[in-house]
Amino acid sequence: MDVEQVPDGVCAPRGFVAAGVHCGIATRQDKNDLALIFSKAEATAAAVYTRNEVKAAPVFVTQANLNDGRARAVICNSGNANACNADGEQVALEMCALAAKALNIAPQEVIVASTGVIGQRLDINHIKNGVSKLSAALSEAGGSDAAHAIMTTDTAVKEIAVSFTLSGKECKIGGIAKGSGMIHPNMATMLAFLTTDAAISSEMLQKALSGVVRNTFNMISVDGDTSTNDMACVIANGLAGNAEITEENEDFEAFSFALMYCCIYLARMMAKDGEGATRLIECVVDGAPGEDAARTLAKSVISSSLVKTAVFGADANWGRVLCALGYAGVSFDPKKIWVKFKSAAGEIIVCENGAGVDFDEKKAKEILSEEEIEIIIPMNQGNGTAVAWGCDFSYDYVKINGDYRT
Amino acid sequence: MDVEQVPDGVCAPRGFVAAGVHCGIATRQDKNDLALIFSKAEATAAAVYTRNEVKAAPVFVTQANLNDGRARAVICNSGNANACNADGEQVALEMCALAAKALNIAPQEVIVASTGVIGQRLDINHIKNGVSKLSAALSEAGGSDAAHAIMTTDTAVKEIAVSFTLSGKECKIGGIAKGSGMIHPNMATMLAFLTTDAAISSEMLQKALSGVVRNTFNMISVDGDTSTNDMACVIANGLAGNAEITEENEDFEAFSFALMYCCIYLARMMAKDGEGATRLIECVVDGAPGEDAARTLAKSVISSSLVKTAVFGADANWGRVLCALGYAGVSFDPKKIWVKFKSAAGEIIVCENGAGVDFDEKKAKEILSEEEIEIIIPMNQGNGTAVAWGCDFSYDYVKINGDYRT
Repeated sequence: MDVEQVPDGVCAPRGFVAAGVHCGIATRQDKNDLALIFSKAEATAAAVYTRNEVKAAPVFVTQANLNDGRARAVICNSGNANACNADGEQVALEMCALAAKALNIAPQEVIVASTGVIGQRLDINHIKNGVSKLSAALSEAGGSDAAHAIMTTDTAVKEIAVSFTLSGKECKIGGIAKGSGMIHPNMATMLAFLTTDAAISSEMLQKALSGVVRNTFNMISVDGDTSTNDMACVIANGLAGNAEITEENEDFEAFSFALMYCCIYLARMMAKDGEGATRLIECVVDGAPGEDAARTLAKSVISSSLVKTAVFGADANWGRVLCALGYAGVSFDPKKIWVKFKSAAGEIIVCENGAGVDFDEKKAKEILSEEEIEIIIPMNQGNGTAVAWGCDFSYDYVKINGDYRT
Repeated sequence: MDVEQVPDGVCAPRGFVAAGVHCGIATRQDKNDLALIFSKAEATAAAVYTRNEVKAAPVFVTQANLNDGRARAVICNSGNANACNADGEQVALEMCALAAKALNIAPQEVIVASTGVIGQRLDINHIKNGVSKLSAALSEAGGSDAAHAIMTTDTAVKEIAVSFTLSGKECKIGGIAKGSGMIHPNMATMLAFLTTDAAISSEMLQKALSGVVRNTFNMISVDGDTSTNDMACVIANGLAGNAEITEENEDFEAFSFALMYCCIYLARMMAKDGEGATRLIECVVDGAPGEDAARTLAKSVISSSLVKTAVFGADANWGRVLCALGYAGVSFDPKKIWVKFKSAAGEIIVCENGAGVDFDEKKAKEILSEEEIEIIIPMNQGNGTAVAWGCDFSYDYVKINGDYRT
């Protein structure tokens, strides 16, 4: 299946415009804090949400709005999560109403999201003041502004677009995401907004998104904390003119593959931009007793504080990798496991059949000093394979989170 | 039930001697790395072990030796976990044989434990060289030496002894423990060795220990990593002369209460001495939908990296507390929850009925700047109560673990 990366993000597919402005939630005047994405044509939409029992108000409102599988716009603020506020749902509904009025659509066609501090009231006046400036700024060049506006502690903008072909028609998918802390694979971790001009029914769109999220956003972890606000959504306006996808056919596979490409890219970017992170950790579990087992084991390794600090110190402490596999809650035979470390600087085997082997410590240090590290774990006891992405644990994570709110 | 704290540790009960020496595993000559505890009389014994799938060799050997519910000695080294080594079991068996020979008992009467780096071969010659010095040093004053010898990154010695009465006879329980990193409540987290002169059958001893561990050692977390070597064991030699406990009677309750007292003390000490910790966090969940739910929720709060970093920064970011409750995997109504912070400096309510309330930020900062912090969570939706203990997450955790092995 052919997928080609193309420039831009959410505005790459036909018919999408976006904008990002400063509306006053962020104290810094030069920090955009309100984003809008809009499809000029009607569209189907699908989303996955946090599984946290404590859900932010916008999650409930978006769930209700997407009941009919349709949406045309996303409004999202940063700097305030609108979670655990007595008037949260009212504020989220009002955000939809304000966006809908400015775009001349129904409030139920709006996806609303928030990210930032939990438990501080979100003053709707900021949105009121910002929304006309925001809708006036909508343009096909606005994708990057929107990507900036949803950032909190992120240090890098996260956007991607790809091109692929469905029934002879060129289609595109674009996406932006944010996520740097309170990131853990328990659902559509973090915020990701995807757009496409492919024609696909809302049912198939939901199926494609849920399948892809399972192997991408749900496989990253920064700190083990699943946020109250997580959401990944995709809007499909059909302007590419392909035959609408309404069943699990070849086109569905091709669409899912392109969506997967975008989500892996964004997921890796999020892991790499984990709060305080200096290194991306990719854990590949292979030969596990089952697919779910592989996923659980890979996630356990990239979530381990001790593995994360070892990688930060470029210390080939592979015993911690075995330890993290061991407490994942999966039954397996430790005596069949191998462990390899790999990066641009080379590859080294540190454990064979569950026991340590002599290895070149200097070489291991070199490998672990690169920016992207692979921990490869052939388990030799089944067909389960999975990849998970995380980051190292540095002084800066503690610094960023020791005084985030004040 | 009357329990009185008395001086000393494992040698407080009648008939126990202990010692700690340097045998050469630790590079520093002044760091004791081999401990021995011995009951001069025959004794029953019970233990609980790590649930990690990757278990260290001494865990298997001890499990086998305790099959008959009897043991008289504990040998334990620090500096090397004897985990994930091809010859691990042979080395652990040899440690038992060496201790047994020096003490003139059977190797099956020895409990063996190790703690330290995973995946480096433990040279039995160190134990061979150390064991005669070790057995020669055995004395009633040696409890503290043994407690020192099992420490790794611990900064404080952890020992306690209590006195109580069973059927008119004064009994004692003594205990030592180690644990500072790779600590997470999934079983008898860390190493704890307890002694008692109470007479109690091995069956009842196991029942008492398992029950107590559930609410003490299993309720602490430093970093979410369950070690390969965790073990808590208790040896009872009956020298107090009480009527042997063989059923769940009043004496069993009194014994369990005294054991609980010791284990809470040691568990709190471990949490407080968490790697890099500056503060002890005690989370009290009350009114939860069930006892298990309460335990899971309290553990989720003290395990959250974001709660831990907030406490390190003395930042009253209570939204992270709600967030951690929410992803614990327990169903509950967030709108009934209250959150209070409490310490020697006072008490403050920060959340009522799931939403934030205005509070004095300066006062909150004062409360959270104390060394022991309570996070109290009245959930108002059931009868479940639990307490969990953890610590804050500081720069030093990262420092200690970034380069532990080399």
